Amino acid sequence: MVENEDRNPVTIIGLGPMGQALATAFLKNGHPTTLWNRSTGKADDLVRQGAVLADMIADAITASPLVIICVLDYNAVQSILEPVGDVLRGRVLVNLTTGSPEQSRRTAAWAAEFGIDYLDGVIMTLPTTIGTSASAFLYSGPELVYEAVHPSLMSLDGNATYLGADPGRAAAHDMALLDFLWASMSGYVHALALAGAENIAAREFAVYAREFVANIPDIMTQIANQVDEGSYPGDLSNIISAEAGMGHIIHASEHHGIDVSFLSSVRTFAQQAIDKGYGTDSFARVTTLLRKPQA
Amino acid sequence: MVENEDRNPVTIIGLGPMGQALATAFLKNGHPTTLWNRSTGKADDLVRQGAVLADMIADAITASPLVIICVLDYNAVQSILEPVGDVLRGRVLVNLTTGSPEQSRRTAAWAAEFGIDYLDGVIMTLPTTIGTSASAFLYSGPELVYEAVHPSLMSLDGNATYLGADPGRAAAHDMALLDFLWASMSGYVHALALAGAENIAAREFAVYAREFVANIPDIMTQIANQVDEGSYPGDLSNIISAEAGMGHIIHASEHHGIDVSFLSSVRTFAQQAIDKGYGTDSFARVTTLLRKPQA
Ligand SMILES: NC(=O)c1ccc[n+]([C@@H]2O[C@H](COP(=O)([O-])OP(=O)(O)OC[C@H]3O[C@@H](n4cnc5c(N)ncnc54)[C@H](OP(=O)(O)O)[C@@H]3O)[C@@H](O)[C@H]2O)c1
Ligand SMILES: NC(=O)c1ccc[n+]([C@@H]2O[C@H](COP(=O)([O-])OP(=O)(O)OC[C@H]3O[C@@H](n4cnc5c(N)ncnc54)[C@H](OP(=O)(O)O)[C@@H]3O)[C@@H](O)[C@H]2O)c1
Repeated sequence: MVENEDRNPVTIIGLGPMGQALATAFLKNGHPTTLWNRSTGKADDLVRQGAVLADMIADAITASPLVIICVLDYNAVQSILEPVGDVLRGRVLVNLTTGSPEQSRRTAAWAAEFGIDYLDGVIMTLPTTIGTSASAFLYSGPELVYEAVHPSLMSLDGNATYLGADPGRAAAHDMALLDFLWASMSGYVHALALAGAENIAAREFAVYAREFVANIPDIMTQIANQVDEGSYPGDLSNIISAEAGMGHIIHASEHHGIDVSFLSSVRTFAQQAIDKGYGTDSFARVTTLLRKPQA
Repeated sequence: MVENEDRNPVTIIGLGPMGQALATAFLKNGHPTTLWNRSTGKADDLVRQGAVLADMIADAITASPLVIICVLDYNAVQSILEPVGDVLRGRVLVNLTTGSPEQSRRTAAWAAEFGIDYLDGVIMTLPTTIGTSASAFLYSGPELVYEAVHPSLMSLDGNATYLGADPGRAAAHDMALLDFLWASMSGYVHALALAGAENIAAREFAVYAREFVANIPDIMTQIANQVDEGSYPGDLSNIISAEAGMGHIIHASEHHGIDVSFLSSVRTFAQQAIDKGYGTDSFARVTTLLRKPQA
């Protein structure tokens, strides 16, 4: 890809599947792109497409006013960046590594000490979406920093949302999204095991499961409205019928020798809600039971 | 609504939110529609729209060659239909009540004894979708019966899929879909509790959660392909990183005093997979661990 004079130089630190996807999108959009990765061999393709691979992390950083890091976790971020705080001074650091809100806030505080403009971000979609309109990003940190880097971030062609000055805000959303993801995925693999026991191939079930997912966004909005209003009308579906439904699934799973520990712990919450007199409320009521009373 | 001479008469038994939605769609499409419900008062609106309310279940059945039942569960089905098996003889009975594959098969066997043409169905979408193209139904049972009633079922304006002769097949899919649903919904209410502890309103989180759901169908297909192929490459994301991610969410939840029983049981499976040497496989591998070895 030919470099475009209008595009700012970008440095990408971390060349896992996501770092490679980010680098590819910047290259495609004509940004002079510099790369660094702990181990060698992951940049070969990108170098063929025009990227420059730096041997030393300090050289990678000085190559661009905008440095993006996307590695396994915050321990990796720390071990890579701690020695080069001074080199980053005066540059923008965008951290797209998954972590907790606390880790984002601590990294922002560290960056402030070194005079680094720090923006925290999370990627809500898979590497295959990067550089397409299906990608989605959340950012938080100083608004001026977000505005300064926004034109370059647009090369990722994603839905970018700015969530405000608290650097932990994007990570807080991400953690809750991943909480939902792991629960869903555990339900899905369990559903595949149950379908398999009924001689339904995984690929056959997936066709209907994909269609079924179309129900979820509206249910999410309904539950969120109830939670914010603190009112849980169960006229369309209530906890008593949910608990009974879970009981049937648990029964069928046990019949086929399939573990029921996930769903049993969900059912326990439904039972507790019923015991507390919330049986005719909607399942959204369970949200209020998950937070333990403070001692 | 004016009756349409071309439309077959239909009887609907059960007037919960779903039964009412079904009756409304048949009325809108000009079917002479007869109703029966255990308790009174739920048919008033529908009668104003032109439906006939039968006092006696036998009268409701003799009014139409096609009888649709949609009630709470199979105990309710049994208590309503057991006394009127002879009245149903020679008619088509479509059962849209949620239940297990075994319950569907037992009801089909009972219907066969009485010479009733029995089709089992499940509704994959909410009552608000019925009569719109967003609705989706799965059916199983004798193909000739499905073909005979298909033109009338089209008045529900849904995506109807016929799954074959085994009357339990639709229920088997439904049970696995609901297994996925309850896991997802428990993850969602947990995510709302975690977001709330970070001062994120449920409605704010729901905006991103809805967007995030768009990732799930493709992940479902990927996992299903791996399960059917019995090969679980973890090059894009593996169990070690999933387990670490769950650990962070559990840690953050505990920090906020939020119950972690559900995610902990998912994490236990991820840990078992790692202990068995599957750490660099994808999460799809967990499917194989859920089914206990037969004694
Ligand atoms: N992949 C996805 O679907 C996805 C989606 C959304 C967000 N994310 C997030 O994006 C980030 C990167 O993910 P990824 O998919 O690219 O792969 P990953 O396996 O999470 O991260 C791989 C990168 O981290 C580096 N790394 C790991 N440990 C290190 C250490 N101790 N010191 C220095 N570098 C270290 C690796 O270097 P080596 O090459 O030397 O091992 C490689 O550059 C993660 O936080 C992930 O949660 C990923
Ligand atoms: N609502 C949904 O979102 C949805 C989505 C997909 C599938 N479904 C399935 O559709 C079916 C009907 O659901 P629904 O939403 O309409 O409400 P529901 O509360 O599940 O069922 C209400 C109906 O069942 C009847 N009923 C309950 N116990 C009975 C008994 N012992 N004897 C006779 N009748 C009895 C009720 O009669 P009374 O009026 O006399 O109480 C009413 O007609 C269920 O199997 C449900 O799982 C519902």
